[in-house]
Amino acid sequence: MPIEAISQLDPVIHSKVRLAVMSILAAVKEASFIYLKTAIGTTDGNLSVSLAKLEEAEYIKVNKSFQGKKPLTTCVVTAKGRSAFARHVKALDSILHMEIIED
Amino acid sequence: MPIEAISQLDPVIHSKVRLAVMSILAAVKEASFIYLKTAIGTTDGNLSVSLAKLEEAEYIKVNKSFQGKKPLTTCVVTAKGRSAFARHVKALDSILHMEIIED
Repeated sequence: MPIEAISQLDPVIHSKVRLAVMSILAAVKEASFIYLKTAIGTTDGNLSVSLAKLEEAEYIKVNKSFQGKKPLTTCVVTAKGRSAFARHVKALDSILHMEIIED
Repeated sequence: MPIEAISQLDPVIHSKVRLAVMSILAAVKEASFIYLKTAIGTTDGNLSVSLAKLEEAEYIKVNKSFQGKKPLTTCVVTAKGRSAFARHVKALDSILHMEIIED
């Protein structure tokens, strides 16, 4: 019988950079592009693609504004994203700390 | 400053099927190819590629034998694989349950 938690891993969240983005946004209210880039240690391009994929799934909301003359991009997690992340974490936790019950 | 745990995720282990294989082998002494395939809910091809990659990294040992006339493939985790999995789980746990300390 398949182990149910494995199928419950969310492919949108599972990739390393997207997992890191969701973990940070679940912990803080709002994070800027620069903050995420530095914290995750990734490139502009990789982070942009990751944010676009998370926004497409409606897991985050990306806001573009200006701070004086400088463009400022900030991200927040949505209610849908928070639920999806909670489900993913629950599935991961049960996979990582698996107890096999033999027949 | 980059969050250290993110760079400590092991790319060999992070993919969904390989993570599932390592989690199962960390929980049981030995598992057959058929058992892994059923538990993970994956295909022969996908599982074969995943096992080959884990074996190449010396994280598992794949044994091929016969049970009567039927070929039997079994897998065990190595000491190196067990350490790598423990490090990966530790890194994931600290990412998933991140607490951001603001400056």
